[in-house]
Amino acid sequence: MVEIKVVALAGGVGGAKMVDGLARILPDHSLTVIVNTGDDFDHFGLRICPDLDTICYTLAGIANPETGWGRKEETWKVLEALVELGGPTWFRIGDRDLATHLERTRRLAEGITLSEITQQFCDRWGVSTCVIPMTNAQVSTIVKSVEGDLAFQDYFVKRKCEPRVSGFYFKGGETAEPSPGILQAIREAKIVIICPSNPWVSIDPILAIPGIKTTLMTPLGLQRVFAISPIIAGAAVKGPAAKMYFEMGIEPSAVNVAQHYGSKRNQGLLDGFVFDSLDQDQTDEIANLGLATFKTNTLMKSVDDRIRFAREVMDFATAPLD
Amino acid sequence: MVEIKVVALAGGVGGAKMVDGLARILPDHSLTVIVNTGDDFDHFGLRICPDLDTICYTLAGIANPETGWGRKEETWKVLEALVELGGPTWFRIGDRDLATHLERTRRLAEGITLSEITQQFCDRWGVSTCVIPMTNAQVSTIVKSVEGDLAFQDYFVKRKCEPRVSGFYFKGGETAEPSPGILQAIREAKIVIICPSNPWVSIDPILAIPGIKTTLMTPLGLQRVFAISPIIAGAAVKGPAAKMYFEMGIEPSAVNVAQHYGSKRNQGLLDGFVFDSLDQDQTDEIANLGLATFKTNTLMKSVDDRIRFAREVMDFATAPLD
Repeated sequence: MVEIKVVALAGGVGGAKMVDGLARILPDHSLTVIVNTGDDFDHFGLRICPDLDTICYTLAGIANPETGWGRKEETWKVLEALVELGGPTWFRIGDRDLATHLERTRRLAEGITLSEITQQFCDRWGVSTCVIPMTNAQVSTIVKSVEGDLAFQDYFVKRKCEPRVSGFYFKGGETAEPSPGILQAIREAKIVIICPSNPWVSIDPILAIPGIKTTLMTPLGLQRVFAISPIIAGAAVKGPAAKMYFEMGIEPSAVNVAQHYGSKRNQGLLDGFVFDSLDQDQTDEIANLGLATFKTNTLMKSVDDRIRFAREVMDFATAPLD
Repeated sequence: MVEIKVVALAGGVGGAKMVDGLARILPDHSLTVIVNTGDDFDHFGLRICPDLDTICYTLAGIANPETGWGRKEETWKVLEALVELGGPTWFRIGDRDLATHLERTRRLAEGITLSEITQQFCDRWGVSTCVIPMTNAQVSTIVKSVEGDLAFQDYFVKRKCEPRVSGFYFKGGETAEPSPGILQAIREAKIVIICPSNPWVSIDPILAIPGIKTTLMTPLGLQRVFAISPIIAGAAVKGPAAKMYFEMGIEPSAVNVAQHYGSKRNQGLLDGFVFDSLDQDQTDEIANLGLATFKTNTLMKSVDDRIRFAREVMDFATAPLD
């Protein structure tokens, strides 16, 4: 494959699988991943960055393949002792995973930025993909729900996504700056891929950081932007995306994800859209939004699936568009 | 044994052994331990209280008998992962021990005081002895050395007690208050025991908290105060006490420990002094300070030693003084 610069926007599990596939087929240093940090929170005084860690652990080959979060070959000694003390265990932190939070917190307190720390950790873990948190500022996804405004992890983990949602906002987003290197990476990218992550709480926080969306919409040269539907046959592969769509009165469907980002023709972000073959009856509707379309099996169950899918996406993204 | 109220002043390992012996022979709820917190520090953003944990772990029967600090049956998964990340490992924290620091830090951030948290942890661990940190304020032992002022753990663990010391002070000590219950426990105590802990950096910080020393020196009724020498035959059983004495130009000896606290007759703290039979040639000199004396084997190698020694100390402390 010709070396071209690729930028991916990613949240947690779905994003990590997509990014892993891309990293495995693209030449070293051609992929930059911009990661959602709206889910980040403080627990026990430690800074926890769930999506960033899922992406890095996956790229490092040390992610837990069963859970989709945390590390493989994990132990739970600290958690066991926390139970003994009556401490909170709603957010399950494994021993090795905890070391990441401890050391990140220590370096942050020394004045090192989150993006620098992420680069340092990636160097240690042998990850050659450039992974950048969307911002070094503290931006928090807040879920507007029937129970009032909820911090993301309170909604997602503690309340198990039960409260009915009516919307989202990104506290601190208006004044945050993109991490160093993000805008340049976007400007240099020939291909931008919005991963099959939750549009509301994984991708929208990234797009809410001032400068990111406008840079995507005003490319310096030829640039194509693609999104991949996290919704397959009306359901999310993982997580609350479909439930959120329903609760906000929108049918969860590939076409509605495409509509969410919009086509360049209609002052939106996208040139093309990738969705599952199970949703092929939506092809015309998606094309009518002004988008090139590509349908295939988008489910990534194995590493081979990730590689196969990444190849298909890159072939579509680099081919002449209809 | 007749139920009498006993207060012990204690630092880390030597104090923990003494206190454990006392707890095993005294009726429930008759022993209150006031613990040095001058060694406490923040690491990875977590509050670590080495002496408090050593005392509580020992009383709970979960202390590591080999190291003198930390928990028994400990694992080191977090530390291993920290090494992987290039994090600092000069202060070795085991997995189970780490849970204590995490949960303490979390509760402190909720506004619960250190003395309340200590009580809560003791309840969980089944410790019926009343363990109270000397203060809920932040008081830090600073070591004056040829390398300048050093925070205690930097001196003790990171620099392995190498820099030559010239003195100590207790930052924040002047304005700190004793934890709730301390002054009342001292007033009600018939026997006060200064454990065989380092006089300079384990006991002096406690005595530096305004109100503790004056309350000890103005008992409401009959009260006797005893100290036990941590120096045996010119050496400390563990830790830098003897080295500190040398560096400050004082011979490390039982009599100089007795002199450090002073006798009531000479406006000091003590009624009596317990020291090792190996130092019996110092008996007259110690008695001449105005102290009742008791010599025995003060080394506590086993739990049986602790019990035997605690009995001897209590027998001496409750017998008519010469």
